[in-house]
Amino acid sequence: MAQRKATLERLNAFSDGVFSIIITILVLELNPPQQTTFTALLALWPTGVSYVVSYLFVAIVWVNHHHVLQYAEAPTARLIQRNFAHLFSVSLVPFSTAWMARTRLAGVPVALQAGVFVLVNVTYVALLWETFERADEREISAQARHMMRVRSFLTLGAFSIAMVLSVKFPLYGLGLVCCCLVFYLRPEAPHTAGNRSRFLAILRAPRRRGVHCHTESKE
Amino acid sequence: MAQRKATLERLNAFSDGVFSIIITILVLELNPPQQTTFTALLALWPTGVSYVVSYLFVAIVWVNHHHVLQYAEAPTARLIQRNFAHLFSVSLVPFSTAWMARTRLAGVPVALQAGVFVLVNVTYVALLWETFERADEREISAQARHMMRVRSFLTLGAFSIAMVLSVKFPLYGLGLVCCCLVFYLRPEAPHTAGNRSRFLAILRAPRRRGVHCHTESKE
Amino acid sequence: MAQRKATLERLNAFSDGVFSIIITILVLELNPPQQTTFTALLALWPTGVSYVVSYLFVAIVWVNHHHVLQYAEAPTARLIQRNFAHLFSVSLVPFSTAWMARTRLAGVPVALQAGVFVLVNVTYVALLWETFERADEREISAQARHMMRVRSFLTLGAFSIAMVLSVKFPLYGLGLVCCCLVFYLRPEAPHTAGNRSRFLAILRAPRRRGVHCHTESKE
Amino acid sequence: MAQRKATLERLNAFSDGVFSIIITILVLELNPPQQTTFTALLALWPTGVSYVVSYLFVAIVWVNHHHVLQYAEAPTARLIQRNFAHLFSVSLVPFSTAWMARTRLAGVPVALQAGVFVLVNVTYVALLWETFERADEREISAQARHMMRVRSFLTLGAFSIAMVLSVKFPLYGLGLVCCCLVFYLRPEAPHTAGNRSRFLAILRAPRRRGVHCHTESKE
Repeated sequence: MAQRKATLERLNAFSDGVFSIIITILVLELNPPQQTTFTALLALWPTGVSYVVSYLFVAIVWVNHHHVLQYAEAPTARLIQRNFAHLFSVSLVPFSTAWMARTRLAGVPVALQAGVFVLVNVTYVALLWETFERADEREISAQARHMMRVRSFLTLGAFSIAMVLSVKFPLYGLGLVCCCLVFYLRPEAPHTAGNRSRFLAILRAPRRRGVHCHTESKE
Repeated sequence: MAQRKATLERLNAFSDGVFSIIITILVLELNPPQQTTFTALLALWPTGVSYVVSYLFVAIVWVNHHHVLQYAEAPTARLIQRNFAHLFSVSLVPFSTAWMARTRLAGVPVALQAGVFVLVNVTYVALLWETFERADEREISAQARHMMRVRSFLTLGAFSIAMVLSVKFPLYGLGLVCCCLVFYLRPEAPHTAGNRSRFLAILRAPRRRGVHCHTESKE
Repeated sequence: MAQRKATLERLNAFSDGVFSIIITILVLELNPPQQTTFTALLALWPTGVSYVVSYLFVAIVWVNHHHVLQYAEAPTARLIQRNFAHLFSVSLVPFSTAWMARTRLAGVPVALQAGVFVLVNVTYVALLWETFERADEREISAQARHMMRVRSFLTLGAFSIAMVLSVKFPLYGLGLVCCCLVFYLRPEAPHTAGNRSRFLAILRAPRRRGVHCHTESKE
Repeated sequence: MAQRKATLERLNAFSDGVFSIIITILVLELNPPQQTTFTALLALWPTGVSYVVSYLFVAIVWVNHHHVLQYAEAPTARLIQRNFAHLFSVSLVPFSTAWMARTRLAGVPVALQAGVFVLVNVTYVALLWETFERADEREISAQARHMMRVRSFLTLGAFSIAMVLSVKFPLYGLGLVCCCLVFYLRPEAPHTAGNRSRFLAILRAPRRRGVHCHTESKE
C-alpha cells in the first residue's frame, strides 16, 4: 500500500509540474507591441482574450484533475496511460491559443481551440471512469456519480457546439466557451447557503481514506 | 483535516512551480547582442535593469505568498480562486518586463510594469484578507493585522504613484519601484536588534499548528 | 538511512521536474500556421507526428525512470552521475524533434531522433545496472533481471536499426520507432489475464522496503 | 521547529524547480540547422560544446546546493536572500551560453560565461558561510571547513583566470573551465579506496539531525 501511495503521489507531482508549466508558457505567446503607446497595447486585445480564456481553462482543469485523482486507489497502468493522454490534450492548449491570438480570433483557430477543449474533456471523462469504476460505491454515492456524468456531458456538448459554431462565427463560439468557464467559477450556486461554489465544495468533503494518511494519527 | 492539509500542500506546490517558472523564463527575454564586444553587452543595460527589477519583485512575491499561505486553514473555493488570480497577475510580469526591455525603458511600458505590480499587490491583499479573515484572533494579533494592512496599502500607493509617474518620467517611476523593493530587502530594520529583516522575521515565528505536523511529535 | 532516503527523494523530484519540463517545451516547437484554414493545419502533419512520437517516448521514459529508481538504495555518486547523463540524453529530444518537424521528416533528422532514442536507452541501461547491481538478489529475481536485460537490448537494437534505416528511408525508420513505442503501450500482454500491461504491472508489485515508509505503520 | 523545517523544505523544492528549469531551457537555445545533412549538424559543434559545458556546470551546482542546504538549520532572512542571489547568478547561465553559442565561442562571450561561473561561485561561498557559520562545530569538523574553503577558492581562482584568458584566447579559457568541471566529476579520487568520488561521498555521510526526521523512528 505504501508503494501505491508513493507512486500516486509522484503521478500527482508530475502532473502538477506539467500543469504549472503549461499555464506559465502560455505567457510566452504574449508578444509585446513595437510601439510604446497604450493604443498599441489595446490593439492586442485578441491576444489578451485568448490568454485569459486559456488560463481560466487550465486552472479549472487543474482543480478537476486534483479532484478526480483523490479517488484513485492504485496507480494502474490504465490510470497512468489515461493520465498521460489527459496531459497530452492539455499540452495542446498553448498551440491553439497562439494560433487564435496571432490570427486575431479567426474562425478555424477558435474552432481548434474549442476542439482542444473537447479533447481535454474526453480524456478527463476517461480518467474519471477509470477512477470511479474502481472506487467503492460507499465512498461515491450514486447521486454524485450521476451528477458528475451529467456535468461532464453538458460541458462536452457545449464545447462541441462552440467548436462547430466557431468556424463561421468565432466570437459567438468563444462567447459560449467563456459562459461555460464562468459557470464553473461563479462563487455561489443558487441553491447552496454557504459562500462556496458547489464545484469546489467537494474539496472540503471528508474522504474515506487519506492519501497522506501520515498526518491522520496526529489529530 | 488530513485531506485539507494535503490539498493545501498541493496548492503550495503548484504555486511554487508557477513562481519558479515565471522567475526563470524572465531570462528567455534576455537576447544576447549580435556583436562580441563588452560595449555591445553594456548597451543592453535597460534589459539588465528590467530583469533585475522583475527578479527581485518575483522573489519578494514568493516570500510573501509563502508567508500568507502558512495561515490558511482550509482550501476553500475562494482561497483557490484568489490564489489563481494572484498567480495570473504574477504571470503578466514576463510580458511587461519584455516590453520594457525592448523599448529601452519607454514611458508606457514602465507604467504597465508598475501597473502589473499594482495588480499583483491587489490580488495579494485579496488573498491576505481571505486567509486572515478566517484565522483565529489569538494567532494573529490585532497589531500584526494592522501592520499588514498598513504595509500593503503603502506599497499599493507607492506602485500606483510610480505607474502614473512613469508615463511621463519612466526613470523616476522605475526609481520609485526600486526604492520599494530595496525597502523590503534591507537586511536590518532600524529598531530591531538582530541581523534579520523585520519582513522575514515572521518566518521564524512559532505558528499555532504545523501544516507538516508529522514532524511535530519527534521534537 | 533517513538522509539517504531524503536525498533519493530529492533526486526523484528533480528528475520529475526535468521530465515535466521536457515533455512540455516540446509544444513550444509547434508553430501555428499563418493561414487560418484546416488545410494549413493539416499541412503541419509532420510536426504533429514528431510531437506525438516524442511525447510518447518521454512518457515511457518517465515510467521506466520511476520504476528503476524504486530499487535504488543509496544516492551514490555514480547513481547521481548516471542519472544526470540520462537526463542529459532526454534533454536532446526537443532539439531532434524540432529538426525533424521543420524539415518535414527528412532522412538525417529522423536518424538523429532515433540516435537520441538510442542514447537515452544506453544511459537508461547504465542507470539500471548501477541500481540492480547493488540491489539484493532476493528482491529482484534472476528471471526479472534477465527479462529486463533482454528487453533493454531488444529496444536498443530496434532503435539502432531505425537510426541506420532512417538515413535513406526516414518514414520506414520512424515506423519502426513507432512500433517499439506502441509495443510498450499496448494495454494487455497476450499471456496475462488481467487488464493491465506487463510493462506497468511491476508498479503494483510489493517492494522490499518502502521509500516512503512513514505511511507503512498506519496500515 | 516543524515550521522551520517546512520552510526549509519549501526553499529546497523551490530551488530545485529553478534548477530543473534552467538546466532544461538551455536546450531551447539549440537551434537545429536549415540543411538536413550530418555536415550541417557537425557545424553546430560550438553550440554543442556550450550546451554540454553549461549542463555539466548546472548539474554540479545542483549537487553543491543540495549539499550545503543540508546543513541549514533555520530559514533565516539572510539564508533566503543569499539563496535568491545564488539562483539569480545561475539564471544568467542560459544567457551567456546562448551568446557563446551564437558567436561560435568568441572571446568576450566566453569571458562572460566564465564571469557568470565566478558569480555563481561567489554567491555559493556566501551561502556556504551563512550556513556553516551557524552550524555547530561538532557537526562540521575544522578540517572539513578548511577543505571546503580551499576548494571554493581554488575553483574561484581558476574561473577568474579563465575569464581573463578568454578575452584573448577563448578556447584556452574554455579548456580551463572544462578541466575544473571534469575535476569535480572524476569518479575516483586518487587516495580513496572506494569507487565513489570524494566530492559526493559526503552525501552518504551520517548527518546530525534528519530534515526528514519523520522516517527515522521507523528504522
